[in-house]
Amino acid sequence: VTAYGVFGDDPRPCVRIGDGLVDLRAVEGELPVPPGTFFQPSLNAFMALGREAWSATQGRLLELQPEVVPIEGQPLHLPFEVADYVDFYSSREHAENMGRLFRPDTEPLPPNWLHLPIGYHGRSGTVVVSGTPIVRPKGQLKAPDDPAPTYAPTRRLDFELELGFVVGTASRLGVPVSTSEALDHVFGAVLVNDWSARDIQAWEYQPLGPFLGKSFATSISAWVVPLDELTRCDGQPQNPPPLDYLRVPENWAFDIDLEVRLNHQTISRTNTRHLYWNVEQQIAHLTANGAGLRTGDLLASGTISGPTQDSVGSLIELTRNGAEPLELPDGSSRTFLEDGDEVTLEAAGVGEVAGRILSAS
Amino acid sequence: VTAYGVFGDDPRPCVRIGDGLVDLRAVEGELPVPPGTFFQPSLNAFMALGREAWSATQGRLLELQPEVVPIEGQPLHLPFEVADYVDFYSSREHAENMGRLFRPDTEPLPPNWLHLPIGYHGRSGTVVVSGTPIVRPKGQLKAPDDPAPTYAPTRRLDFELELGFVVGTASRLGVPVSTSEALDHVFGAVLVNDWSARDIQAWEYQPLGPFLGKSFATSISAWVVPLDELTRCDGQPQNPPPLDYLRVPENWAFDIDLEVRLNHQTISRTNTRHLYWNVEQQIAHLTANGAGLRTGDLLASGTISGPTQDSVGSLIELTRNGAEPLELPDGSSRTFLEDGDEVTLEAAGVGEVAGRILSAS
Repeated sequence: VTAYGVFGDDPRPCVRIGDGLVDLRAVEGELPVPPGTFFQPSLNAFMALGREAWSATQGRLLELQPEVVPIEGQPLHLPFEVADYVDFYSSREHAENMGRLFRPDTEPLPPNWLHLPIGYHGRSGTVVVSGTPIVRPKGQLKAPDDPAPTYAPTRRLDFELELGFVVGTASRLGVPVSTSEALDHVFGAVLVNDWSARDIQAWEYQPLGPFLGKSFATSISAWVVPLDELTRCDGQPQNPPPLDYLRVPENWAFDIDLEVRLNHQTISRTNTRHLYWNVEQQIAHLTANGAGLRTGDLLASGTISGPTQDSVGSLIELTRNGAEPLELPDGSSRTFLEDGDEVTLEAAGVGEVAGRILSAS
Repeated sequence: VTAYGVFGDDPRPCVRIGDGLVDLRAVEGELPVPPGTFFQPSLNAFMALGREAWSATQGRLLELQPEVVPIEGQPLHLPFEVADYVDFYSSREHAENMGRLFRPDTEPLPPNWLHLPIGYHGRSGTVVVSGTPIVRPKGQLKAPDDPAPTYAPTRRLDFELELGFVVGTASRLGVPVSTSEALDHVFGAVLVNDWSARDIQAWEYQPLGPFLGKSFATSISAWVVPLDELTRCDGQPQNPPPLDYLRVPENWAFDIDLEVRLNHQTISRTNTRHLYWNVEQQIAHLTANGAGLRTGDLLASGTISGPTQDSVGSLIELTRNGAEPLELPDGSSRTFLEDGDEVTLEAAGVGEVAGRILSAS
């Protein structure tokens, strides 16, 4: 599988080929791109060129047989500069699980959920590359029975397993992008860990949505994988049928096996096929009001959870909000993440995103 | 009042002096800034230099007596590249008014409101400069009695009057910024119109907050005004007292007279002193979980509403959600904005932000 990244002490774009990488700056003169495209520390200039240039570059790289450097030992950086980061909520099982935990007195699925891909904007400035340590965030905590909030390190630190899409070419402000045009704008996919502090989130998120419970860090994989490297399958039946602007000619999903490891022990296996809304629908919705896409926009799927308890994408679901601790093969147990814990998400054919928890400073 | 902007056919930074402007690129060699600071189409490089450089530049400009060009006839551009855009909700009167309209069955003020400055991330990519036409957005609409949603142009297009703060110098990821350090990071203030489609917002915003009801456009004034150009007054008493990380040595607010005009007729007069949370507290809260600030971050106050019906900062409040149409001096009346309407927000000493509504495309 081919993928693009940014590597080295003097950060520069590269392409991954097997276990090695090719320095794209070194071969830029032989590639069908404008001069300077790879003379910046991110993929953004290349991403902005569009599908024809991406394909032509890939084709030319195959002909060139350029020098391949081993990846091992190379520092890998955030592969692109994030413009706007939108986090969707596109797994029905996850939305239902969260509804039961956060709003036990109402229907688990919000009334709008089956009609539109719910999403919100996250913080672009705190998107970090796989391997970046995650400092346990502090924040306002108030359990329902507490008389007043306190400011303290989160006691309910969690991960969220998500697939992310990276926008290559911009769209025009004021002009919606249709479902059939949507994929033309997408450069590739990354794996995402949307770290979450559940206690901060629970106290702050009404009425304007998650903020500090999420904004301390979001980790993405170091490699961006072109969409045509990924396998597809049938999507979930959508009932009620979506409004016209959300209709897709074929209802499809990506078929990517996913695994979550906590301290190198597998705690969940799932698949992107469980997502109800696909990326064409997410982009059509995001731009339905005329909002433009920019090079570097990151669209994450929302937590991917399957229908069974061992196929969910977060600890809050795995432990039913801490009520049922997770027993690990090494004899330890967890409700939420502890200092020193390492979480690794892996997606077949995409790569992995890992991070270790540091104690609150 | 001095202010900074970006002007011209070949966009470049400038400073406003009276009714004229000074091309900062033309005099860069005589200013205490690194070469190239003004050779880009935004203020970001200058903003990143920090308070000492900003003061030294202002002092040197006074000595230089450089050539001043009339502003009239000059195209003015977005003055800075927006990094993350956060919209707070810091006027108690506005929060109470919105609570009554959107959640009539509960207490108007959410339980967390007096404990923390509620905020959420907006879309940076659709922040536009004053004067940019605003295309009426389409979106999913569903009144409570409708059997299903439709996709149609909003029927409840509104403005929101806000003051925005522009971050100059970044802060370190993982390290909270205290209230006493907060102002060192702020380059200046802009006036903000956070355009809102109330029907899209009402249907979409639970549980993850506003998204497409806001993301089609946010207008800001063309000029960024340094904070020391603005007058201060006592802040509102804060009870319960905020947690330590939100305490400020002096409880102050900006004292800026504000006016809203619809088709050149004044429909509201208010003042920034009505804001409950100030910018020091907003920054301390935003970074309390370790989230970093970046050059170009925009922090908007949230709609500014005073205690009386003629001092509120949005049409939804002025017309009580359309129930009491607003009668205008020219004999027309409005519940929400109509195509062709022009909204002008003005802040004494800061400037104005204007926009005209175009019909849905």
